[in-house]
Amino acid sequence: MTTMDAILAGKYPAKSHARRVAELLKEHEHDAPSIIYLEAQKTRFIEDNDESMPFRQRRFFYYLSGCLLPDSCLIYDVNADKLILFIPPIDPEEVVWSGLPLSQDEALKLYDVDTVLATTEVNATLASIASTYGANAAAFAIADQVSNGIKFQGFARTNLSVLKGAIEKSRVIKDRYEIALLRKANDISAKAHIAAIKASKTALNECEIEGAFIATCIANGAREQSYHPIVACGENGATLHYGKNDDGLIDPATKIRKKNVLIDAGGEYRAYCSDITRVFPLGGKFSMETRQIYEIVLQMQTECIAMLKGDVQWEDVHVHAHRVAIKGLLGLGLLRGSEDELFEKRISVAFFPHGLGHYLGMDTHDTGGNPNYEDKDSMFRYLRVRGRLPAGSVITVEPGIYFCRFIIEPFIKSPELSKYIDTDTLERYWGVGGVRIEDNIHVTKEGYENLTTAPKVIEEVEALAL
Amino acid sequence: MTTMDAILAGKYPAKSHARRVAELLKEHEHDAPSIIYLEAQKTRFIEDNDESMPFRQRRFFYYLSGCLLPDSCLIYDVNADKLILFIPPIDPEEVVWSGLPLSQDEALKLYDVDTVLATTEVNATLASIASTYGANAAAFAIADQVSNGIKFQGFARTNLSVLKGAIEKSRVIKDRYEIALLRKANDISAKAHIAAIKASKTALNECEIEGAFIATCIANGAREQSYHPIVACGENGATLHYGKNDDGLIDPATKIRKKNVLIDAGGEYRAYCSDITRVFPLGGKFSMETRQIYEIVLQMQTECIAMLKGDVQWEDVHVHAHRVAIKGLLGLGLLRGSEDELFEKRISVAFFPHGLGHYLGMDTHDTGGNPNYEDKDSMFRYLRVRGRLPAGSVITVEPGIYFCRFIIEPFIKSPELSKYIDTDTLERYWGVGGVRIEDNIHVTKEGYENLTTAPKVIEEVEALAL
Repeated sequence: MTTMDAILAGKYPAKSHARRVAELLKEHEHDAPSIIYLEAQKTRFIEDNDESMPFRQRRFFYYLSGCLLPDSCLIYDVNADKLILFIPPIDPEEVVWSGLPLSQDEALKLYDVDTVLATTEVNATLASIASTYGANAAAFAIADQVSNGIKFQGFARTNLSVLKGAIEKSRVIKDRYEIALLRKANDISAKAHIAAIKASKTALNECEIEGAFIATCIANGAREQSYHPIVACGENGATLHYGKNDDGLIDPATKIRKKNVLIDAGGEYRAYCSDITRVFPLGGKFSMETRQIYEIVLQMQTECIAMLKGDVQWEDVHVHAHRVAIKGLLGLGLLRGSEDELFEKRISVAFFPHGLGHYLGMDTHDTGGNPNYEDKDSMFRYLRVRGRLPAGSVITVEPGIYFCRFIIEPFIKSPELSKYIDTDTLERYWGVGGVRIEDNIHVTKEGYENLTTAPKVIEEVEALAL
Repeated sequence: MTTMDAILAGKYPAKSHARRVAELLKEHEHDAPSIIYLEAQKTRFIEDNDESMPFRQRRFFYYLSGCLLPDSCLIYDVNADKLILFIPPIDPEEVVWSGLPLSQDEALKLYDVDTVLATTEVNATLASIASTYGANAAAFAIADQVSNGIKFQGFARTNLSVLKGAIEKSRVIKDRYEIALLRKANDISAKAHIAAIKASKTALNECEIEGAFIATCIANGAREQSYHPIVACGENGATLHYGKNDDGLIDPATKIRKKNVLIDAGGEYRAYCSDITRVFPLGGKFSMETRQIYEIVLQMQTECIAMLKGDVQWEDVHVHAHRVAIKGLLGLGLLRGSEDELFEKRISVAFFPHGLGHYLGMDTHDTGGNPNYEDKDSMFRYLRVRGRLPAGSVITVEPGIYFCRFIIEPFIKSPELSKYIDTDTLERYWGVGGVRIEDNIHVTKEGYENLTTAPKVIEEVEALAL
């Protein structure tokens, strides 16, 4: 059993999360007794249909319970340090069709909570806690995530505004159980990325590659994708939010297989995400142009990852990626001018328009990034994380270079900026589409740990694609 | 090119559907001029997340447009026989990230509509139509499916109560384009069922079989499943709504592979569903008990399908399935007593508790079935379609025999009913789990057409599983 498997064989640390969140709430409540109340996502039906919607557990509830059941809720009694999980009562009619649900005893063994009760007992439990603490206690919950019928009567006050922010803050720093979950999601997705490359050997359409990726995730326990996969061949790779994944791999005009495929996809494991991008050649060998761009992007990524450790300023890392990109594109003759001038004029943004990465956890774009999408500076506007990265955070490092006409053409048409881009050289690169390489990095006090094992060394990728 | 492909190369018959629905509305409006207004599903975000929810087009809108774009809407001007589609205007900021969306000109070529405009022009168009028809015109729309800001001012009345029912009624009878779509969904799913059987040869867990099924659907253009797949090995097959799909295929106690797998899954093709159930052996050969049950279920299905033609009474077909089941279970010694007595006492409901089938179309459980879930008679309570099947309808025929303790035990424990079931014989059958065989049948005037091509002949299934 690996260390990861051994950790995951234990319970999700719900109680420890509850304590951390309660600690953050003390800023608001000082020493008054208080409770935290959180609800799971409800079973919801597809509109005009009798089938339930695909279920996605509410992250705030999961963080303090580790429980993936719908229609549940929890109370954390902060002063008593008691975590109570409420699960739906058994419905005999439903057992006939769906079998026995998890019992309260089983739930108590499975989850890191002190008590398991039926959801029918929530209000009585709330009333009992309120009466114990008298007129001092505060109840914390999340606005719009409290069901009708839940009664906080007896509590001195109900605060619906700060709990969400406290959990979002707590979620930035991952504990070792969460790291194990993220690693597991990554391990499964690495298998899926390899399966995707192998499938490309005989595939005729992007969707066959997507199918192979998703099948491998499902077969290994990642039933859900962290986000809608991007499988983009040739110039489709230049479209950052491409998601149609239904294009032919063979150019209909030339009958030749397109150069390469960009795949940005990651499976979700027990509510924790992976987010991995790879580019591989169709037919086993990168074209010269794709290989040149790939080498620059890989260098951007390698050098940026090497900069990571607790308290690193994320903007500095992002800037470094641009510096490496500028050097590389100058070397290929795609850019003209001095490195500093190109940087000052933000020319590399034409090829690398998005941010270097984002926090990763239960959400693909995880909480706590504090972006500034109003930033006037085009280099930083789309950076999803601003400021220093604390040790314990997990961040994606995903530099890219794209040949997207909608993004590059305004630069070429600008009287001021056109001189920096060599359009003759550029002509040879449109077919590359885009190259992005994305790993998931656990930031530690002294450095980092790369959770992503999907192959990215050129020779290894080419061997798989051959 | 097959007939199916040739049909599907044409346009989805939106205009013809609009006319049919308008005809049904005349019951309410007689000859007054009127319009139909329908909205597509909106782009919606996952709660507490910046990723959009998996998109599922609103079926009522799709039926009159054939358009899978979110955030669109349509007006059908009944008197002018003019169908106008409104699609979202191009957002230059979004183009940078997502590429060019479908243009109005492209949409006009793609869809069976008379005009394509931007959604910004909806209110002006409504006002213009209202002013043309003066004080007589009525506007039909669906309650809760009209965006804030849409203005029906100038129309004599707005009717939000009858349009939905009219479309539901119209949808029961499928035209040849819809049949081609259902056939296509079936063809893709047949490939996926074969892939699932083949995957079972090396698989260790249900999820590997599910992965193979879904991959094959995606690779062949069915990006979405019609419903959450059921992949149930051994006794899991007795749980009708099983959906965990994460159990091992090898019995942990005996280390022997379980007997068989029940897979109920179907891909969706351009909003049209397939719904197919198959049972196959693990290891290439059905056990004697599974084979015996399989033969009974296949006979139930074959004889019921043979009864189908326009205006057949669905209850009669359902009853026939029970009659065949009773004969078969008597033959195996599982039941005791006379056929008529077993039928009168509803004993076969212990083994075949659900309805024989349901309409199939854009919803898995399609519109127009008029079930009576309050029916006191246990044999008919769960029948999702009641009454006569019109020619042109598509219905699933899905008899099953299950060995579900939660369903059978109340019969065994009943002083009145226990004598009809031979519990000694029953002991040998629990391991079968359940057998269901489900095809999708197009009811025609003179008979039927089976749209499902997935293999179900015992020898063929065994050969695939070997």
